[in-house]
Amino acid sequence: MTGFKHLVVVKFKEDVAVEEILKGMEKLVSEVESVKSFEWGQDTEGLDMLRQGYTHAFMMTFEKKEDYTAFVSHPSHVEFSATFSTAIDKIVVLDFPCVLAKAPA
Amino acid sequence: MTGFKHLVVVKFKEDVAVEEILKGMEKLVSEVESVKSFEWGQDTEGLDMLRQGYTHAFMMTFEKKEDYTAFVSHPSHVEFSATFSTAIDKIVVLDFPCVLAKAPA
Repeated sequence: MTGFKHLVVVKFKEDVAVEEILKGMEKLVSEVESVKSFEWGQDTEGLDMLRQGYTHAFMMTFEKKEDYTAFVSHPSHVEFSATFSTAIDKIVVLDFPCVLAKAPA
Repeated sequence: MTGFKHLVVVKFKEDVAVEEILKGMEKLVSEVESVKSFEWGQDTEGLDMLRQGYTHAFMMTFEKKEDYTAFVSHPSHVEFSATFSTAIDKIVVLDFPCVLAKAPA
């Protein structure tokens, strides 16, 4: 196990300033100590048959599920989520205890 | 940047033995040296409005995009993908250079 992950995959609305959203997300994770790591990326391969229109992935890692649960109701997250939800066309969210099946050498 | 990520989010068909699929995936990543790390998880929160029916996430990390490109056409991947594709109900795949915006302390 390598902590509890909060994975968010989105397609943004066309007129959204993704840079601004990212700034807000970086501010959020800096404000909440229990977010141990935050990684993100924008798809560069464009395999439309496989990506289903989704373009961005955001991954936050917590030490344990309780930290994730506390994060969800944290005022900074509640505030950010309200803004974020207006910016997205569609979303998939998965939350899971993460299994590290092959570790970096 | 923390390498190039291959993110696969799926909903399996109902009668699929997920354990078998996982064994195949672990064999695959053990056979291909360029897969630097492999993490996966099954959603435990069940927020159906947000997870859209998807249940599992698989994340492979490569040092660079060229390693990912070579992995895609690797015989072990081609063989595994043929089996995997028969097991899934739906899928989202994103491939991206990963930005580590908050690093573990």
